[in-house]
Amino acid sequence: MALNIRRLDSRDAGFDATLAAVLAFEAGEDAAIDQAVAGILADVKTRGDAAVLDYTRRFDRLDAQHAPNVEALELRADELDRALDGLEPARRHALETAAARVRAFHEKQATESGTHSWQYTEADGTMLGQKVTPLDRVGIYVPGGKAAYPSSVLMNAIPASVAGVREIVMVVPTPGGVRNDLVLAAARLGRVDRVFTIGGAQAVGALAYGTRTVPAVDKIVGPGNAYVACAKRRVFGTVGIDMIAGPSEILVICDGTTDPRWVAMDLFSQAEHDELAQSILLCPDAAYLDAVQAAADALLPTMPRQAVIRASLEGRGALIQVRDMAEACAIANRIAPEHLEISAAAPAQWAEQIRHAGAIFLGRFSSESLGDYCAGPNHVLPTSRTARFSSPLGVYDFIKRSSLIQVSEQGAMTLGRIAAELAYGEGLQAHARSAELRMETLAAPDPAA
Amino acid sequence: MALNIRRLDSRDAGFDATLAAVLAFEAGEDAAIDQAVAGILADVKTRGDAAVLDYTRRFDRLDAQHAPNVEALELRADELDRALDGLEPARRHALETAAARVRAFHEKQATESGTHSWQYTEADGTMLGQKVTPLDRVGIYVPGGKAAYPSSVLMNAIPASVAGVREIVMVVPTPGGVRNDLVLAAARLGRVDRVFTIGGAQAVGALAYGTRTVPAVDKIVGPGNAYVACAKRRVFGTVGIDMIAGPSEILVICDGTTDPRWVAMDLFSQAEHDELAQSILLCPDAAYLDAVQAAADALLPTMPRQAVIRASLEGRGALIQVRDMAEACAIANRIAPEHLEISAAAPAQWAEQIRHAGAIFLGRFSSESLGDYCAGPNHVLPTSRTARFSSPLGVYDFIKRSSLIQVSEQGAMTLGRIAAELAYGEGLQAHARSAELRMETLAAPDPAA
Repeated sequence: MALNIRRLDSRDAGFDATLAAVLAFEAGEDAAIDQAVAGILADVKTRGDAAVLDYTRRFDRLDAQHAPNVEALELRADELDRALDGLEPARRHALETAAARVRAFHEKQATESGTHSWQYTEADGTMLGQKVTPLDRVGIYVPGGKAAYPSSVLMNAIPASVAGVREIVMVVPTPGGVRNDLVLAAARLGRVDRVFTIGGAQAVGALAYGTRTVPAVDKIVGPGNAYVACAKRRVFGTVGIDMIAGPSEILVICDGTTDPRWVAMDLFSQAEHDELAQSILLCPDAAYLDAVQAAADALLPTMPRQAVIRASLEGRGALIQVRDMAEACAIANRIAPEHLEISAAAPAQWAEQIRHAGAIFLGRFSSESLGDYCAGPNHVLPTSRTARFSSPLGVYDFIKRSSLIQVSEQGAMTLGRIAAELAYGEGLQAHARSAELRMETLAAPDPAA
Repeated sequence: MALNIRRLDSRDAGFDATLAAVLAFEAGEDAAIDQAVAGILADVKTRGDAAVLDYTRRFDRLDAQHAPNVEALELRADELDRALDGLEPARRHALETAAARVRAFHEKQATESGTHSWQYTEADGTMLGQKVTPLDRVGIYVPGGKAAYPSSVLMNAIPASVAGVREIVMVVPTPGGVRNDLVLAAARLGRVDRVFTIGGAQAVGALAYGTRTVPAVDKIVGPGNAYVACAKRRVFGTVGIDMIAGPSEILVICDGTTDPRWVAMDLFSQAEHDELAQSILLCPDAAYLDAVQAAADALLPTMPRQAVIRASLEGRGALIQVRDMAEACAIANRIAPEHLEISAAAPAQWAEQIRHAGAIFLGRFSSESLGDYCAGPNHVLPTSRTARFSSPLGVYDFIKRSSLIQVSEQGAMTLGRIAAELAYGEGLQAHARSAELRMETLAAPDPAA
């Protein structure tokens, strides 16, 4: 049965409203989940290890023999080594190459992204600047079960490691006691320091508040289910968090000269993640849109995840005819997609017109899947139009800055006068007097002179 | 009546627990406020201008003559000019000097903080990098009434302006129709593009969703009351927001050689903000702590805001004797204060030991009040221990990054093999096929050859 992907034309009346409706995604907040999570977090905060143990036994179906205490749920370093050593050689090589490339990119990012301290001195001796320090300790949440992605371990751990975070603590549930060796090997390559086989809201609580066994961290990153997302929202403020991700998205802009099968498969590669994932193609050439539709129809039966792909493409996908490539770029800026492929000859001219996208893949050989695994840039990207104001996960998410202000005696006179004037204007007299007391002392004749 | 500030000693049994109790601050969530805000936001989203107008008339006590429609609530550019021109010369000079210094610091910050695009090309022709773009449009919330701080206007608008944000939209309520000329003059100096005299949750909703008259922005920054803070939390995701600030804090580390009146007044300058503000002094010298207590007692009657200062210092303040300056630095890292003054000879040796603080003021002439107004660095700083993972407001908050990935034909072969291997490992076959389709074409003999 042919794929019933919606077909739009930017010249149609009502196109803007139709596009807005296709893009609309409201992250539903489930009150029952929120209540459950609030209870789990409060319990972990109060009872610590005992609560973590109770929830882990219950939700991950572990008995007292396999989970006698939280200490027993920590993996030893040699268990990670063994997971890596046990991988089939081709897979190990692929994982190691991916880790090395991701590390190289993020090392370049560290040098280019202002993760260094700096200061300057003014004529009167006043020094101003910013001191940059890595976070002390970071927690990485890794889902267990079917959505266990070793690539996510690398993408979350490596920027923290490159930033110089002192300790990286990973949590990963092992439902029924089943471990994922590829995930553990990735933890080893990502230089994770400690791994606890716990998950859910109880793991988020343990990382946020700390327990006798699990150390409190300063920031929690990584994807998770609705319970984990809710728990991260709730502990935000006590610790930092990364963005709460919505469904994954790809927007392909094509000039009509790429093999239609390549574009169809790129749309599939996003659609296979999740029925709510969104794949959209923009092209000025109606015949090319037909060709992609035909290629998609021909390729779909070959895909093991065809049910998910169909649900995603028919529910949230779109093939859109645009006036020209410039209009395609304008629409891309409105969509602000997580992933943008510019599948065209001379793609740089179009990339220049893009202001909002998590990642821009230039040229027909740059399939999104290469970026997902091993090109080097991070695959944790802003979704749901948040690329308008946020960035890929990076080294800059694992550092923070402190302002440096050292005012000279002369500076205390000139700045003091300005500060006092403005402080009085705001009705904050102690602010004014704090500056003036120093000015009075500096202006007084030196008793020793 | 002498100030009853709690006195602690780091050698006392139970000091850690006592300090933790002194620091504890739970930002209370008020369910009634949350419900009210949810209703206002939903109404603004649905009814737009009409809802904004209704709430503004009601909450800011404006009649239909003064608020006939939302257009009439926008200030014209010449009204800002007039506010600036009408300032008393000394105050105007102070405001202009502060604006120029804040701009100069943030321009330096822009060059030092990696707000430029970058890319590099690998041996096989694959290009990787990041494109940096400013946000399109930013909203600045400015409180009206008694807590109207022109310095906050400068501190929020200038980093956005330096980052290259295309349009800066300010909202400021004018309860009873009363405008604050110093705030409007600061908007002019901060290069704010548009000003609407609206406030509360309705203004946050208008900025987040857009109305016919108020343009939708990409990020909302700036302080506000509990309704505004709640509204910002609720629209987060639709737009970016800055941190939700807790009560302001100062920690002074003193080696006992600074005029005790200066330190007492610095503690006052934080305490006068708010009864929940926190002022703490650490010093190895018990006699010096006595001297600061005596200076505080002597100075308090001279302060117009003495009631607030007393409530703050007696409720949340502390004078703490420590073993030595190194221990003071260790405690400072535990507190992770918003403002840290190192009031000591040779302060740099101690600043080196500080990992967590919003701003570090070095040396006895660097009173916090200079930083609040005119030293140059931003006065919007992380509170409530969030300096462990977040930074002062800066140019970097008004830019975002897009990854750039342009894979060469050769790169598509080598990276494709790795990506396919890992994608099969994760059970994502469309990801693998997307890479393999390109490899198959590239590996096939050229039919034209």
